[in-house]
Amino acid sequence: MAQKPSIPKGTRDFGQLEMARRNYIFDTIRSVFGLYGFQQIETPAMENIGTLMGKYGEEGDKLLFRIQNSGEKAASAPEKGLRYDLTVPFARYVVQHREEIAFPFKRFQIQPVWRADRPQKGRYREFYQCDVDVIGSDSLIGELELIQIVEEVYRRLGIRVCLHINNRKILAGIAEVIGAPDKIVDITVAIDKLDKIGVEAVNAELKERGLSDEQVEALQPILKPTPTLPEGRENDPKAKLASLREYLAGSEIGLKGVAEMEEIFDELSIVNCQLSIDLDLCLARGLNYYTGAIFEVKALDAQIGSITGGGRYDNLTGIFGLPNVSGVGISFGADRIYDVLTELNLFPAALQSSTQVLFAAFGQDELRYALRWAKELRANGIAVEVYPEPAKMKKQMGYADTKQIPFVAIVGGDEMAQNKVMLKNMTSGEQELMELGELVKTLSC
Amino acid sequence: MAQKPSIPKGTRDFGQLEMARRNYIFDTIRSVFGLYGFQQIETPAMENIGTLMGKYGEEGDKLLFRIQNSGEKAASAPEKGLRYDLTVPFARYVVQHREEIAFPFKRFQIQPVWRADRPQKGRYREFYQCDVDVIGSDSLIGELELIQIVEEVYRRLGIRVCLHINNRKILAGIAEVIGAPDKIVDITVAIDKLDKIGVEAVNAELKERGLSDEQVEALQPILKPTPTLPEGRENDPKAKLASLREYLAGSEIGLKGVAEMEEIFDELSIVNCQLSIDLDLCLARGLNYYTGAIFEVKALDAQIGSITGGGRYDNLTGIFGLPNVSGVGISFGADRIYDVLTELNLFPAALQSSTQVLFAAFGQDELRYALRWAKELRANGIAVEVYPEPAKMKKQMGYADTKQIPFVAIVGGDEMAQNKVMLKNMTSGEQELMELGELVKTLSC
Repeated sequence: MAQKPSIPKGTRDFGQLEMARRNYIFDTIRSVFGLYGFQQIETPAMENIGTLMGKYGEEGDKLLFRIQNSGEKAASAPEKGLRYDLTVPFARYVVQHREEIAFPFKRFQIQPVWRADRPQKGRYREFYQCDVDVIGSDSLIGELELIQIVEEVYRRLGIRVCLHINNRKILAGIAEVIGAPDKIVDITVAIDKLDKIGVEAVNAELKERGLSDEQVEALQPILKPTPTLPEGRENDPKAKLASLREYLAGSEIGLKGVAEMEEIFDELSIVNCQLSIDLDLCLARGLNYYTGAIFEVKALDAQIGSITGGGRYDNLTGIFGLPNVSGVGISFGADRIYDVLTELNLFPAALQSSTQVLFAAFGQDELRYALRWAKELRANGIAVEVYPEPAKMKKQMGYADTKQIPFVAIVGGDEMAQNKVMLKNMTSGEQELMELGELVKTLSC
Repeated sequence: MAQKPSIPKGTRDFGQLEMARRNYIFDTIRSVFGLYGFQQIETPAMENIGTLMGKYGEEGDKLLFRIQNSGEKAASAPEKGLRYDLTVPFARYVVQHREEIAFPFKRFQIQPVWRADRPQKGRYREFYQCDVDVIGSDSLIGELELIQIVEEVYRRLGIRVCLHINNRKILAGIAEVIGAPDKIVDITVAIDKLDKIGVEAVNAELKERGLSDEQVEALQPILKPTPTLPEGRENDPKAKLASLREYLAGSEIGLKGVAEMEEIFDELSIVNCQLSIDLDLCLARGLNYYTGAIFEVKALDAQIGSITGGGRYDNLTGIFGLPNVSGVGISFGADRIYDVLTELNLFPAALQSSTQVLFAAFGQDELRYALRWAKELRANGIAVEVYPEPAKMKKQMGYADTKQIPFVAIVGGDEMAQNKVMLKNMTSGEQELMELGELVKTLSC
């Protein structure tokens, strides 16, 4: 009895169309990264278990896939695990190769990661991450370039987005000026929910988390910054920053955060950035990790959450013995970008088939005639298939249909006698007798 | 105490230059595959353990990496394993998705595989395979196109190669005509060593393996086919096939093999294939798997063994319940191709850096000026880096040197006043003041 084939839950096969579409996303991102001098690295799928353990919290440790050599006893402790993200392997890479690396180090990495999560819609046990970072410089040009990259990637993909930006230093300043510097995590966890649960529920949660009535009251301008800004400028980041500068007057770190944001927005003006940007004081994202700017990108025309995110960090490599290396990075969510492009019907139609023409022959002589023509077309860079046997024309046409090949070049005795082929346009159904030169010209368009 | 970072033995990090070179190989192969209408698929890194076990022999089973969820008890049997090659996942894929697939199915797959082999020079526990197959047709156009692909890939890479070709049916025919049809495996295992150990040792081994003196004697024309061919045509495949036709006159399967080879060589003439091809009757490669043509490609200018290999098979998918599906495929050995290109110094120099120009600024104002220029260059498709702080010029130049960036655009007060930059050619050391338009023109070359 043969086995019924299947794959592990939470994993996926990618067929030809999915691969063409995924490659379109990755190629677009990769070419934009290249314009900014980011270069690709790859790390092994498996890392030593010590490299991974303790880096993702107790919950994360449980989601690691561990690897055993088949020869090893089942009871012996596995020494390796599959990578859980690209961040920890990147930190490990930077420290391990620090003598060879030219800093600032601008790298990107596009590889799968594995998590033993409970599989559910849109959550997989194997999925690709696409991370871009510059490490070894605290210049805000890092932030600037990542924002420019976001602008250009989504411009090329045709997705309208808004970039939400915040700064950990501003959040720390807010906690300071309301007199609760030790409550920064509680504050951010609560205000992060503002969009979902509204201001009343946020205030209730803040009190539950130990803030006094006065502290919650003092926080209100942050939760409703709009009224403090002139009409029509409620969403103007520079006006928001000016208002924040007053609010944070008593906090050195808060003012530093405002200054950083002002510099970033100044530079964005200099490069004439057209991206829609929202200074979003409720944005937190993995707060304990980020130390400066925090980014999150949302698609405007799809309800799908964040499709890109990241921020500035100062101690990524400390755990591996290289402290105080500042960097900034973002991660593009390939699966979600794929879903947005699908939902909005934005994938180029040409991805359906890479083949431009199928040769369909009536007999063995015609088949050999087709092989010669196919060779000439390929020498001109045209993707060609030759149906490999003189099957019934209906079958050959069906193959072209299924693979969505736009043209079929039919070869029978008449065509051979005239040194031509009959080119059928599979969309319009039109047919035309053509010489080789004409065929090359038609298919090169 | 921080951990000293390392990676599991037998695995590798790929830095920027290695990645650029690997991508060059894969992109070259991929674009040739595309010209023939092969399309990419991907399968998950982990397969159900039942999909993998028993497919690679007893030795292979021991080399499987097994996967455990971290949460699972160490003693519980792992249900998943890392893929060991791309062949078994491909067979599984074809059977699982047979309703969606348009046959003949032309697919390629470029993904890592994992084997718990003892690591040694040139043998890794994680390495990429690059497989291309057409399945669901027994037309010899499959063989023809794979040979054309080999020709074109190595032409583009600049590697001179010889394709060795044989046919399982010819080997079966030889075993038949010498009266030892049941000894085909023994015969092929022995004659496969001809190059290494010489004809005397092969004959000795054949006798050890149970062939009679007469049978060994009858085999000699195969081991030394040269004398039977006219001078100057010793390596002419068509002459060899004509000679074989006489030798195999008593074997139906042998003659079928000869006819297949003749058809392939006829078609190769039709498409004017320039590849050096050796009909090599001692070539066997995983004999039990192949049923028709067998291929192996060797670089002529490097001593590195096979860099591509494959053949025709008739029952790849039988184990998963879909018998009698004929296919033909080859696998490109990326690591070995990388080594050949390195040894022969054939990688394009431009792979050293993707960045064409680095902007080096003397101060903050100059830096902002550089950001504006960088934006314009990138809009023209030029890869640009801006050194992110006004560091000492020596440091900025050192960065360009290390990253082998060919040009540095220096921005000081004078340049800004003239609305120009000073472009330094890092190879020649020459400097020239340029306006933006000139800079775009110079860097677009």
